[in-house]
Amino acid sequence: MPKGDQKSRHLVTNASGFNITLGDTQPMNLDNGTQFGPFDIAYQTYGVLNAEKSNVILICHALTGDQYVASEHPVTGKPGWWDDMVGAGKPIDTERFFVICINALGGCMGSAGPKEIDPKTNRPYGLEFPVITIADMVRAQKLVIEQLGIGQLFCVVGGSMGAMQVLEWASRYKDNVFSAMPIAGAARHTAQNIAFHEVGRQAILADPDWHGGNYMEHGSVPRRGLGVARMTAHITYLSEAALHRKFGRNLQNRAQPSYGFDADFQVESYLRHQGSTFVERFDANSYLYITRAMDYFDLAAEYGGSLAAAFDGVKARFCIVSFSSDWLFPTTENRAIVHALNAVAADVSFVEIESDQGHDAFLLDEPEFRRVARGFIDSCAEQRGLGRPDR
Amino acid sequence: MPKGDQKSRHLVTNASGFNITLGDTQPMNLDNGTQFGPFDIAYQTYGVLNAEKSNVILICHALTGDQYVASEHPVTGKPGWWDDMVGAGKPIDTERFFVICINALGGCMGSAGPKEIDPKTNRPYGLEFPVITIADMVRAQKLVIEQLGIGQLFCVVGGSMGAMQVLEWASRYKDNVFSAMPIAGAARHTAQNIAFHEVGRQAILADPDWHGGNYMEHGSVPRRGLGVARMTAHITYLSEAALHRKFGRNLQNRAQPSYGFDADFQVESYLRHQGSTFVERFDANSYLYITRAMDYFDLAAEYGGSLAAAFDGVKARFCIVSFSSDWLFPTTENRAIVHALNAVAADVSFVEIESDQGHDAFLLDEPEFRRVARGFIDSCAEQRGLGRPDR
Repeated sequence: MPKGDQKSRHLVTNASGFNITLGDTQPMNLDNGTQFGPFDIAYQTYGVLNAEKSNVILICHALTGDQYVASEHPVTGKPGWWDDMVGAGKPIDTERFFVICINALGGCMGSAGPKEIDPKTNRPYGLEFPVITIADMVRAQKLVIEQLGIGQLFCVVGGSMGAMQVLEWASRYKDNVFSAMPIAGAARHTAQNIAFHEVGRQAILADPDWHGGNYMEHGSVPRRGLGVARMTAHITYLSEAALHRKFGRNLQNRAQPSYGFDADFQVESYLRHQGSTFVERFDANSYLYITRAMDYFDLAAEYGGSLAAAFDGVKARFCIVSFSSDWLFPTTENRAIVHALNAVAADVSFVEIESDQGHDAFLLDEPEFRRVARGFIDSCAEQRGLGRPDR
Repeated sequence: MPKGDQKSRHLVTNASGFNITLGDTQPMNLDNGTQFGPFDIAYQTYGVLNAEKSNVILICHALTGDQYVASEHPVTGKPGWWDDMVGAGKPIDTERFFVICINALGGCMGSAGPKEIDPKTNRPYGLEFPVITIADMVRAQKLVIEQLGIGQLFCVVGGSMGAMQVLEWASRYKDNVFSAMPIAGAARHTAQNIAFHEVGRQAILADPDWHGGNYMEHGSVPRRGLGVARMTAHITYLSEAALHRKFGRNLQNRAQPSYGFDADFQVESYLRHQGSTFVERFDANSYLYITRAMDYFDLAAEYGGSLAAAFDGVKARFCIVSFSSDWLFPTTENRAIVHALNAVAADVSFVEIESDQGHDAFLLDEPEFRRVARGFIDSCAEQRGLGRPDR
């Protein structure tokens, strides 16, 4: 439990983490021009906050991730999604660092999102939830950090959408970030990525069980639409090589094709499984909102189209990581971040990890990536006066 | 009109081309082990068949293509889909060659497919239509060619699924193909391609208007499912670079994002348009059947996994064409075909066209590709004793 708990007004502990109410005295400004609040944000912490509050690592989760970064997921019962990165003695070492992971605004694991109750109507927000941006998610995270009495984050880390948030943090709150590790990220969502997201959204919107976004009140779940959305997205998370290695053209439990529309191929069976299990743990409207936030992300746009301008005056040390077979957030997009940081003489290192696992590599067993992460964090910790690990 | 018309029993002309009934005296064997017939096949011809019947170019269309290769589409009113490749003085010169394009078995432009009437029940086939393969499509084409009294095709040409058919022709009917030009093709459908097709099929199956495949009898059309399927597929037909060049992150008719789920970005608007117009001209069940046929395609599999064995004894001259930015049927897959042909000492040339237009490049204005096609066909024509063009 965070040592700062007592000082934080609305901090409530519960079995699955913490819940904090924000924006009650002063609503939060959103990018869409409206104000929002009061609203809840849910988060998890791991490790112990030191007296100086200088050992905080904020982990920003990806599109369908959540705050259960290193502890059992309350719905699926599975281990944390970054269990081999975060824990005692692991690259993000909970023996040394106080780790916070916040369910993104718009999400569906306790933070305010379309499935939560709108205190103004006592009904689920549904599509009345405001359309938010990556910057809005980070604004909410900043409020949480302030409530915890933390001035500067030792490190902000995240992959994919999490990387977008890391970049937003480092650019917007320059004094509050000591080091930053955006992984498999981008400073903007590309046309192709927007296109894939749009397909997913249209699949959800086309599902009659979606009921114009009011499926909760209709007692239904747009399973098939959300399942198709997940299937599409899942293909983009893997590389062609990984799909070929894992499944190739292998048939599922049969020697000959069935000449039908069952899942003849293992890859079909796998995708159907991905779609159907996702529906159990994720909210369809949240999927609409969060994909939209990613589509809108274009860090340079707020600075007249200059990414370097967005980073002008950054103080954080950066470690940018990409994976060679990631075609969703490819090395070219990550290199563009490096170039912009170079242009403002920022302290930046860049590593492209050789991997055939595609975008998902950051979530998977990639020893070289873990070595890079450990090295960067340990080195920054020493610079921050947090000492060396006992190894 | 083909000169061979009078000799062909079931040949019927109509405004939009020709219709032929096949498999009435002897049903056609299908790969799924059943027999099929009688059934109709629709096709178009352009140019004049010479006395020796030695100037026939068979064009095999792609997944959503049809026989209207160089003439107005009866539904959309648009010019033929390969209008700048096929015609008087064009690379496939209708002043010199007799061009045939056959609506694929399982299609929806007149050939037997799930939307046609099953003569045994007098109701649309729907899902009673047999699951077919690329080889079955080619078997039906071979019957058409036989009915027209044509022994050897001067050239078999096609892109994408059309290229699969070209390979099947050259491998299965070695004496009947003088030259072959598979474009942007593959000798097998990859796991990633199967995955994308499966997403499209699941989107159709999830549409309640699909009615288990019996939507015609219900007076409905699974527009939304088929639209989502088309949107997904369309992304794979373009390169990331083409999407970026065409649309980038440009907004559609607005200066600022709407912060909603309308089509804010041009790329979204474009994809929605692609989805909705496709539904007007294509049958959802046909989409299921034809994508399935492509998924099953694996030419080597019939020959113990050896692609070279599939080509052993081929007599055709080959020109293999790929496009550098095509990630659906990439150069690597085309090069595998070249290697297999080399292994059996076939007469093969290979060209990778530099293009940023992705898989769709074969349908678009690519001058270098047209030069290659013209050069190959003219050279083969000379070898075949068809003379040189009057240029």
